[in-house]
Amino acid sequence: MGEFKHLVIVKFKADVVVEEILKGLEKLVAEIDAVKSFEWGQDSESQEMLTQGFTHAILMTFNKKDDYTVFLSHPKHAEFSATFSTVIEKIVLLDFPATLVKPPPPAAAKEEV
Amino acid sequence: MGEFKHLVIVKFKADVVVEEILKGLEKLVAEIDAVKSFEWGQDSESQEMLTQGFTHAILMTFNKKDDYTVFLSHPKHAEFSATFSTVIEKIVLLDFPATLVKPPPPAAAKEEV
Repeated sequence: MGEFKHLVIVKFKADVVVEEILKGLEKLVAEIDAVKSFEWGQDSESQEMLTQGFTHAILMTFNKKDDYTVFLSHPKHAEFSATFSTVIEKIVLLDFPATLVKPPPPAAAKEEV
Repeated sequence: MGEFKHLVIVKFKADVVVEEILKGLEKLVAEIDAVKSFEWGQDSESQEMLTQGFTHAILMTFNKKDDYTVFLSHPKHAEFSATFSTVIEKIVLLDFPATLVKPPPPAAAKEEV
């Protein structure tokens, strides 16, 4: 069994300072060891038909599902979620054991490009 | 600038054999070198309120946006997309340069858990 992923896609309310939210998220994951890695991105293609209005993806990776459970029940997560829920217009969450079909090549391969 | 990600979340039509679609996807990314890595997952928590009915996440990683462009314009991608579009009930796509805030620890750290 591989890693467990917590994926959030979101459209923020119009007046929200997204940078502050992301900073809060960064602080949150830094404080909770159970989160193995965290990355996010803002859609750069802006094809409304494809994005359905969603703009940001947030992806957390855990070594195992138990670590995700630890994260979920962490008081700081509850605190952050309470704030987060006030700034979003819409959201989809998917939580899943990840199947890595095409693993990235060794880091050295990156240099060859 | 970091990696570029192609994220797809999807709800398949009721009569679709998802395994076959994923097998096709696996074949596709294996054939196109521009795709650095590929992973997918099926939501295991099934909280309809949170998933909005979406069940699967598909995540492709590219070393740079140009590689994503190569992938998009690849004839095999066009071929696969034509099939894919017939099996989905709903879909959201987000394409973004990824910001890695909390990088995963060195592989060795995994063993300590």
